[in-house]
Amino acid sequence: MSSRFGRFFNVSTFGESHCYGVGVSVDGVPPRMKLTEADIQKQLDRRRPGGNTLGTERNEGDQVMILSGVENGLTLGTPIGMLVKNKDQRPGDYGSMSDIPRPSHADYTYRMKYGIHASSGGGRSSARETIGRVAGGAIAEKFLREQYGIEIVAWVSSVGQHDAKGIDVEAITRDQVDENAIRCPDHSAAAKMTAEIVAAREAKDSIGGVISCVCRHLPAGLGEPAFDRLEAMMAHAMLSIPATKGFEIGSGFSGARRRGSDHNDLFVRKGEQLGTLTNNSGGVQGGISNGEPVWFRVAFKPPATIGLPQQTVDYTGKPTTLEAKGRHDPCVVPRAVAIVESMAALVLADLALIQKMRN
Amino acid sequence: MSSRFGRFFNVSTFGESHCYGVGVSVDGVPPRMKLTEADIQKQLDRRRPGGNTLGTERNEGDQVMILSGVENGLTLGTPIGMLVKNKDQRPGDYGSMSDIPRPSHADYTYRMKYGIHASSGGGRSSARETIGRVAGGAIAEKFLREQYGIEIVAWVSSVGQHDAKGIDVEAITRDQVDENAIRCPDHSAAAKMTAEIVAAREAKDSIGGVISCVCRHLPAGLGEPAFDRLEAMMAHAMLSIPATKGFEIGSGFSGARRRGSDHNDLFVRKGEQLGTLTNNSGGVQGGISNGEPVWFRVAFKPPATIGLPQQTVDYTGKPTTLEAKGRHDPCVVPRAVAIVESMAALVLADLALIQKMRN
Amino acid sequence: MSSRFGRFFNVSTFGESHCYGVGVSVDGVPPRMKLTEADIQKQLDRRRPGGNTLGTERNEGDQVMILSGVENGLTLGTPIGMLVKNKDQRPGDYGSMSDIPRPSHADYTYRMKYGIHASSGGGRSSARETIGRVAGGAIAEKFLREQYGIEIVAWVSSVGQHDAKGIDVEAITRDQVDENAIRCPDHSAAAKMTAEIVAAREAKDSIGGVISCVCRHLPAGLGEPAFDRLEAMMAHAMLSIPATKGFEIGSGFSGARRRGSDHNDLFVRKGEQLGTLTNNSGGVQGGISNGEPVWFRVAFKPPATIGLPQQTVDYTGKPTTLEAKGRHDPCVVPRAVAIVESMAALVLADLALIQKMRN
Amino acid sequence: MSSRFGRFFNVSTFGESHCYGVGVSVDGVPPRMKLTEADIQKQLDRRRPGGNTLGTERNEGDQVMILSGVENGLTLGTPIGMLVKNKDQRPGDYGSMSDIPRPSHADYTYRMKYGIHASSGGGRSSARETIGRVAGGAIAEKFLREQYGIEIVAWVSSVGQHDAKGIDVEAITRDQVDENAIRCPDHSAAAKMTAEIVAAREAKDSIGGVISCVCRHLPAGLGEPAFDRLEAMMAHAMLSIPATKGFEIGSGFSGARRRGSDHNDLFVRKGEQLGTLTNNSGGVQGGISNGEPVWFRVAFKPPATIGLPQQTVDYTGKPTTLEAKGRHDPCVVPRAVAIVESMAALVLADLALIQKMRN
Repeated sequence: MSSRFGRFFNVSTFGESHCYGVGVSVDGVPPRMKLTEADIQKQLDRRRPGGNTLGTERNEGDQVMILSGVENGLTLGTPIGMLVKNKDQRPGDYGSMSDIPRPSHADYTYRMKYGIHASSGGGRSSARETIGRVAGGAIAEKFLREQYGIEIVAWVSSVGQHDAKGIDVEAITRDQVDENAIRCPDHSAAAKMTAEIVAAREAKDSIGGVISCVCRHLPAGLGEPAFDRLEAMMAHAMLSIPATKGFEIGSGFSGARRRGSDHNDLFVRKGEQLGTLTNNSGGVQGGISNGEPVWFRVAFKPPATIGLPQQTVDYTGKPTTLEAKGRHDPCVVPRAVAIVESMAALVLADLALIQKMRN
Repeated sequence: MSSRFGRFFNVSTFGESHCYGVGVSVDGVPPRMKLTEADIQKQLDRRRPGGNTLGTERNEGDQVMILSGVENGLTLGTPIGMLVKNKDQRPGDYGSMSDIPRPSHADYTYRMKYGIHASSGGGRSSARETIGRVAGGAIAEKFLREQYGIEIVAWVSSVGQHDAKGIDVEAITRDQVDENAIRCPDHSAAAKMTAEIVAAREAKDSIGGVISCVCRHLPAGLGEPAFDRLEAMMAHAMLSIPATKGFEIGSGFSGARRRGSDHNDLFVRKGEQLGTLTNNSGGVQGGISNGEPVWFRVAFKPPATIGLPQQTVDYTGKPTTLEAKGRHDPCVVPRAVAIVESMAALVLADLALIQKMRN
Repeated sequence: MSSRFGRFFNVSTFGESHCYGVGVSVDGVPPRMKLTEADIQKQLDRRRPGGNTLGTERNEGDQVMILSGVENGLTLGTPIGMLVKNKDQRPGDYGSMSDIPRPSHADYTYRMKYGIHASSGGGRSSARETIGRVAGGAIAEKFLREQYGIEIVAWVSSVGQHDAKGIDVEAITRDQVDENAIRCPDHSAAAKMTAEIVAAREAKDSIGGVISCVCRHLPAGLGEPAFDRLEAMMAHAMLSIPATKGFEIGSGFSGARRRGSDHNDLFVRKGEQLGTLTNNSGGVQGGISNGEPVWFRVAFKPPATIGLPQQTVDYTGKPTTLEAKGRHDPCVVPRAVAIVESMAALVLADLALIQKMRN
Repeated sequence: MSSRFGRFFNVSTFGESHCYGVGVSVDGVPPRMKLTEADIQKQLDRRRPGGNTLGTERNEGDQVMILSGVENGLTLGTPIGMLVKNKDQRPGDYGSMSDIPRPSHADYTYRMKYGIHASSGGGRSSARETIGRVAGGAIAEKFLREQYGIEIVAWVSSVGQHDAKGIDVEAITRDQVDENAIRCPDHSAAAKMTAEIVAAREAKDSIGGVISCVCRHLPAGLGEPAFDRLEAMMAHAMLSIPATKGFEIGSGFSGARRRGSDHNDLFVRKGEQLGTLTNNSGGVQGGISNGEPVWFRVAFKPPATIGLPQQTVDYTGKPTTLEAKGRHDPCVVPRAVAIVESMAALVLADLALIQKMRN
């Protein structure tokens, strides 16, 4: 625990690498919304490894099944249970857990916390846990789009030393993001990123990256001070994704370098409402959306499991060399794009419902 | 809502700038713990503006009164109510709220959210709201120190372009931090930071900064996957502090530039347990503490209220020039050090109690 | 923990018998609602002992002070902190706690739970803890009345063997309830109840009773299946009041004796909506309000503290005789009327706000 | 929503009558506990209709499948997902929903709340929703039994006018309860109850009843004042079960008739701890367990769906006669025994884990 995220629009996820399946119960979904498995499958496919030439080659399939909460294509307002079966189930696998905790992996900490650890793979710390989030996020996103016209688009903005440039947060679309396998809409940078990932894989190594995300057309007023500010909920959501190390919104860490006179977003009239001339605030002031695009960045470390030999120790403290076998994803950011979008959608759907209570 | 933070060890804060007072109810505090107002006052004094020559000159006093939950110097296990009176109360002030929303301030968003806004000052978005957090955090910190030997130390690591260097996260103490008013233990950098803040004030401007924080001597095993990972709770806590724009743990955004073979923290034997040779993970793997120091950084934007004229619009959209009157804090980071420590303590106290359920 | 009640409209109470004061932070109160201390004081006065000749003779005063969340007589949408000072404070009282746990009182269980117990009085189990509930409930009730026209009226329906008869749940008013000190609108029964209470007091004994409550003009649709059904939340609320032993809604336990053909509430047209011919359901079907009056009953045991000698044991197990000194309330139901109404209001305000998310 | 129950040991249920299946995710289960599907199936079989000659004749099967959280027969500390498929699935059924809301059923209120209702059966208000509770409760019960030796036994204590007599709450066992189909250990009363149910069925009618439950061997100290008192959580749990109308603990409503001198439970020495001579308190004082058996009663109304003609109206308010077709359970209490035990186990497991935080 806790495997639940969200106050009213909330998800409870379950499942690990090699059990029967991974799933989620999504509660708080408004009734009478059109919903089919295809609405959900689309984002699951974007999250799936093997959808491109850069990730692991396993084809996990990951077909979602709606178990409850939908009838005749309409949501009932009751919890929507969803399940994705694991292809690689080993429920009866009595194989010995490795004696060597993988450096920078969750093997050691899970054992310290629970006194037990799933026998293989990442268990609950595995990326497979995020399937439930993406399934729930797809529903949240549909609700936000239909009720508010909200658009959420994430993309890879850096891999290693290579940064995307010239992305317009006001205009970027998901189709543009999906034009290449790395999900970076700056095609020149995308080529360099691809080369970087291929090089890391060939070196049996891995590489980190950054995902940027923008949420457009939010109404002003979303976010709950003092503790459930929009940016606080978003930071919570993003740092709960495996392998993340940082979050910044609007000007972020670079804003800490600046003076107020340069950083403040001056108000201007935009149609019937006020808008701002710049958007260093990232669409949020005092923890509440101001109607400008919410944009933020999430840092992902390089995956911990690498094929290169590592000088480490086993659980008893005895020095040893670890060389991970099998295929491993050298860079998670291309497929994490859908996870970032999904978590953003879960945050916003929850805050949107909560704000309804004031109307 | 939500004005509560924490699952089991939790705080409910109340109060805004010009009401009778600001306070907090702290629930989940273990019984039979020694506690006096002096334990709490110490951190409140560090948070208070006017404690040095750099902040605003108001002396707010901020004497805490324990209202409940403590008897004969011992906690009862019941909620600890605490109150700090506002000196500058204007409960009956019918004065007109300014017609001009301050750029990058919460004036506009509060009005859009609630349809009403406290008549003056920052209302609930004011830094005074953080008094309740610091009061609750002081209790959390005492509990962590006495039960686990945990030490939490934060310091100013940058102001504008000036960065602290050579700080040893394994050794830095709160006394060292408090050696200068800016709370930067690199005295050379501190001098430049001070000059930067003075210059900003003289220019009627403001300046941003970064606070670093380390939490030492955590037991391995704290943090609740999937959604309440230690870093996710910490990010939530930090981004709920006014004026924050970013959070990174361990290698953070710079880790996203690196390869796994370079970034992974190799295990070594440390006494009876395992430790790591490096600490790019920031003391957390898979969302769970590994026993190494948890260290992170929090970005603060420059304060929005500045004396320089700003070309903006009023609530009706009419262009106007805003020049803020009065004294304003040109840089919040020196006094936010205590707030960062307090929020960190609240997160860890909660996670420590929750982990007890597994023992 | 947990000293919080409610999901969105919620109260966090603090305080015990002999600390500085008891209070509450009420979060989730809609903004722009007119509110003064007088709105709250009225119910506090009804809860106060000494308001009639039947309870204890102490005059506690119990003047409420609003600490935050209200400005110029309007709610801000931020938490409303409230405080009632204890007259009988003994913060430094080192007096020995009694060596004898009072039979059927919380002395023993608090000591077993916390390993410490407030030195005198009931501590947190004292009826004084309910002051925060009544203060919060008064705000909830005002919101419900103004937004929905909801009326909540509770009364004493039995004391000992004496039952009120002929009360019309569709018409009974709070003024009628307050016509006598015992708060029983059946004046004939009230006289017998009064005699019963006086007799119990003279015998240094105590007596139990039942409170009935009706909530009228609820919209259909309040209540959150599966676990937060209206009756489940109401039962939780009522059984959290000190000295309660039972809750029943509509036909209650007597309904368990009946056949469906006799018990079912047939639908009829009532204006633009459907209503029911009878109301054995107590205004709730499937956990959701149907628009008919919600009516329920709450059983209160006789107060545990009595002047009669009791053959019991001390904490070490040694047999002894306990004779409680001082004045004690021989029957709590007359003043618990306001507590029952307040808790009902807290439940309904929360459910009403939550249902807004579906509109 | 809310479809979650419990703070730390908690269940999130999903599913309705005619969807793919009903299920639950159980979070907070301690790691390293032995667990197989057989542990869970046992209680599901007791809950299942058709397990005796008194309920409906449908044989639903209700085989549970563990989806996650268990490996090699041991819990991992991660969420335990479980699924029971519905045999009677109609996911694509476009059949018209009845135009007539069943009297005292949830048809009308679900439609008023959600603006939509599952096309047939009880949807989420159906008894099938309780499958997830029983599955989760079975795990909770195993934990309580193994860690504390806690025993939970419920039985039918009345059907219509017939009451069980002479049941010893200190000694009654589940085996004794299961000696007859009606689950009433007073065999003489059981025969009369059976006749009553058979008569109701033959008359196309239904009949209500009461379930009693005892929880033995609780440690003193469970229950969280002020709002999460043991009896408050238990009342919440019980009133969330479909068809319940009342809850009483210990002396309950009859206690409200009595004097304190008669009702108080005098302390006596019992081994190393204190116990009480009588147990009118129902094992709880001040909301906290005192070590004596917790015993309570739950009232169930007669099922709403009956074959007898009912004079009611359709959704438009037009008078009509409703005669329900098909087989319907004339009395729910025999199979609700397992549901009551399960909900009690969920409450106690949660409170037991929370109390661990104080040790």
